[in-house]
Amino acid sequence: MNPAAGVIDAFGLVVGTANVLTEGDLSAYEIDWRKRYRGRALAVVRPGSTAEVAAVVRLCAAHGVGLVAQGGNTGMVGGSVPDGSGTQVLLNLTRLNRVRAIDVANLTLTADAGCVLQAVQEAAAAQGLLFPLSLAAEGSCTVGGNLATNAGGTQVLRYGNTRELCLGLEVVTAAGEVWNGLSGLRKDNTGYALRDLFIGSEGTLGVITAATLKLYPQPAASTTALAALPSLESAVGLLQLAQARLGSSLTGFEVMGEYSLGLLRAHFPQLVQPLPPAPWTVLLEQSDSEGADHARTLFEALLETALERGLISDAAVAGSIEQSRAMWRLRESIPLAQSLEGLNIKHDISLPVSAITRFVTDTDVALLKAFPGVRLVNFGHLGDGNLHYNVQAPPGDDAAAFLRQHEPAVNALVYDAVDAHGGSFSAEHGIGALKRDELAQRKSPVALKLMRAIKQALDPQNIMNPGRVL
Amino acid sequence: MNPAAGVIDAFGLVVGTANVLTEGDLSAYEIDWRKRYRGRALAVVRPGSTAEVAAVVRLCAAHGVGLVAQGGNTGMVGGSVPDGSGTQVLLNLTRLNRVRAIDVANLTLTADAGCVLQAVQEAAAAQGLLFPLSLAAEGSCTVGGNLATNAGGTQVLRYGNTRELCLGLEVVTAAGEVWNGLSGLRKDNTGYALRDLFIGSEGTLGVITAATLKLYPQPAASTTALAALPSLESAVGLLQLAQARLGSSLTGFEVMGEYSLGLLRAHFPQLVQPLPPAPWTVLLEQSDSEGADHARTLFEALLETALERGLISDAAVAGSIEQSRAMWRLRESIPLAQSLEGLNIKHDISLPVSAITRFVTDTDVALLKAFPGVRLVNFGHLGDGNLHYNVQAPPGDDAAAFLRQHEPAVNALVYDAVDAHGGSFSAEHGIGALKRDELAQRKSPVALKLMRAIKQALDPQNIMNPGRVL
Repeated sequence: MNPAAGVIDAFGLVVGTANVLTEGDLSAYEIDWRKRYRGRALAVVRPGSTAEVAAVVRLCAAHGVGLVAQGGNTGMVGGSVPDGSGTQVLLNLTRLNRVRAIDVANLTLTADAGCVLQAVQEAAAAQGLLFPLSLAAEGSCTVGGNLATNAGGTQVLRYGNTRELCLGLEVVTAAGEVWNGLSGLRKDNTGYALRDLFIGSEGTLGVITAATLKLYPQPAASTTALAALPSLESAVGLLQLAQARLGSSLTGFEVMGEYSLGLLRAHFPQLVQPLPPAPWTVLLEQSDSEGADHARTLFEALLETALERGLISDAAVAGSIEQSRAMWRLRESIPLAQSLEGLNIKHDISLPVSAITRFVTDTDVALLKAFPGVRLVNFGHLGDGNLHYNVQAPPGDDAAAFLRQHEPAVNALVYDAVDAHGGSFSAEHGIGALKRDELAQRKSPVALKLMRAIKQALDPQNIMNPGRVL
Repeated sequence: MNPAAGVIDAFGLVVGTANVLTEGDLSAYEIDWRKRYRGRALAVVRPGSTAEVAAVVRLCAAHGVGLVAQGGNTGMVGGSVPDGSGTQVLLNLTRLNRVRAIDVANLTLTADAGCVLQAVQEAAAAQGLLFPLSLAAEGSCTVGGNLATNAGGTQVLRYGNTRELCLGLEVVTAAGEVWNGLSGLRKDNTGYALRDLFIGSEGTLGVITAATLKLYPQPAASTTALAALPSLESAVGLLQLAQARLGSSLTGFEVMGEYSLGLLRAHFPQLVQPLPPAPWTVLLEQSDSEGADHARTLFEALLETALERGLISDAAVAGSIEQSRAMWRLRESIPLAQSLEGLNIKHDISLPVSAITRFVTDTDVALLKAFPGVRLVNFGHLGDGNLHYNVQAPPGDDAAAFLRQHEPAVNALVYDAVDAHGGSFSAEHGIGALKRDELAQRKSPVALKLMRAIKQALDPQNIMNPGRVL
């Protein structure tokens, strides 16, 4: 009997043999959804409680077996599938899917890590409250994964990243102990920020099994507008104006380059674009605690001032929820239009807002010089300084061949420019396996030394998501 | 020559002998402002740059000497003065007092750790921007200390604790290396949350030397109101209503028990109380991005609804900035009135908002039963679940004798009740030396184990603020 068989049998005793999968088609667990990573698990283990997670981790620790925690398997960086060695346990948490409690007066909700994000949103909405985290994968991603990667999304400008939406955690440590830090407190200064250390650590320090999350009152109304702009600099100016005028009721500020909207016209001609083509288009969203009329009045006054100052050349305010949704659909369809146009090289970068114009101007020029004919698909969450700054092969080129030949050099050019402008090479997607080398090269040696010391201290056997992040 | 003399001479070579103090009256450095801790330093060292801080830490590491970082020395828990052994270096950072940069478009400000909080507020205001951290000691506390203790204050409801106001840090590690993490990015998912780990670690993991802080547009207007309430439960109801109606423009929600306001009438009869005595009084503040008329209209509508629902019995809206300030002065004068009434036992606690009524009702009863005649001074940041729940000796008793005899038992009763209601025994003041034993007793063993592992990993020689927190 091989040594692995013993531990697999032991998993069965903990979670039931029906929840230990070693045969058949395990591709839903072993292949990431972008199909860049195809791993092979020693076993897929599906615990049904925090205590079972802890027992599984203790078994892994006793046998020196690595484990990869997985929620909805919607990550962007290959952080939640096993490697190809067949030695790592895939710990799937989707059976931990209860909303444990909602505390309306305290504006908090406690959920298992395996809860789908949308289920959390709906549980909050059923109480007339808002859980503001919102992102494309919300129908299948889990809050545990959102926390492990500190997910961003479309509401960061107002509500922050997932980190800012979490008050407390329950975590199984690498020793298989349960830390119950499920506090619903806005203030608690009793020791080190363990919560924040586990958030964003991508399963490499412990397994998040539950969280207490912040809720907010539902806004009384939301309004959306599109504005056409002559330059990216004007977009930064419009952002400043909107922040001053709308304060925290400005909940969305998305930018789209003309080439991005051109891709929509080519691939989705049925999507109406209310404004004529302009170098840049911004989608603004305001969430109002008073009502629709108030929101609209404020919004129109803002856009009028922006027109007077020459920041924008044209604007359209949504007159209905349907129009508002149609505006968002433009923004959200860009990634798909881009895929239909062909393979491309994606960069999830962030920059100080003040550096964005210079970064884009300079890097566009440098890319076109180094790789003549490439097309630049540029859109993103300008309000957070987060751009999806993607590079598409020249028209007519074999895109796959272009990527094979040029992807490392394109990345190096873009990330060097990001570094030079004080930015980050991973704004909201994390490191996982995909950007591990980038982290080792680009993060400061002192930061890396601190991270490695923390990893060694909390996971001395290196069993928690080995091969990711560090 | 004793071994200490060598290291003191070496400090002089690094920072200049004028900035190494070993003689004369060092009480401003060695005694905390509450005069509960009177330490003795090996030397007071006053570096003038981050490089000098790093060199001093390297000397301490080489000689195995402990060091205590100090800013304005306004901490509440004895975390920034040396112990009495005469072996710890007091590293005073107030010479690091430059605002390094303000980035208006990015809404960030980078400051040395030794900058006084008020200087940061003023530098932001000079650009028409707001740095919202505000607390009683703002004229002398430093941003380094605010970060090291994750300070709270009066604007947490809207803007969060100091942690939420910080985007990047520069830190000198226990090895005397400089980590430059001065990012001005809203999104950056490249590895572990080192920033958050150093924030709130009270100088026990490294020395914060600079920070990049978030700024906000200045609100166009602020309005303040007082409301009289029949019960604490009504105050929680009013909070929910105000959050739903005002959204994020609700920037203050402070509660004051009748006994607290009675102390004001006794000790500060010149302070006008606009409302007749009621069991509870709430101070609400709204910050408006539109203007004073809009703020007042919204506020009056809110209070009218609260009256109709019986949540409040009376209300007064400030008609001018002077009236608004007078309302805040009531709230801010309670600690002093309490001191004038006599020594008392202070508790800086937080609870889930939903548990506050039950906690106060039950704990009041338990305290009065165990310590007949004690007076309960109860006020605080209800919007954050943060109460200053203080216990004053029975009238006529010798307060000092009462404290000597009963303080441990009073603390145990209060903190046991806090634990039972899911609260924290240190909401915004931290641990320092004062609550170190409390932390060891009340924090979960798993959390303590994780904290100790992190401390050991980042400061293996235990030279960073030894004897504090852990």
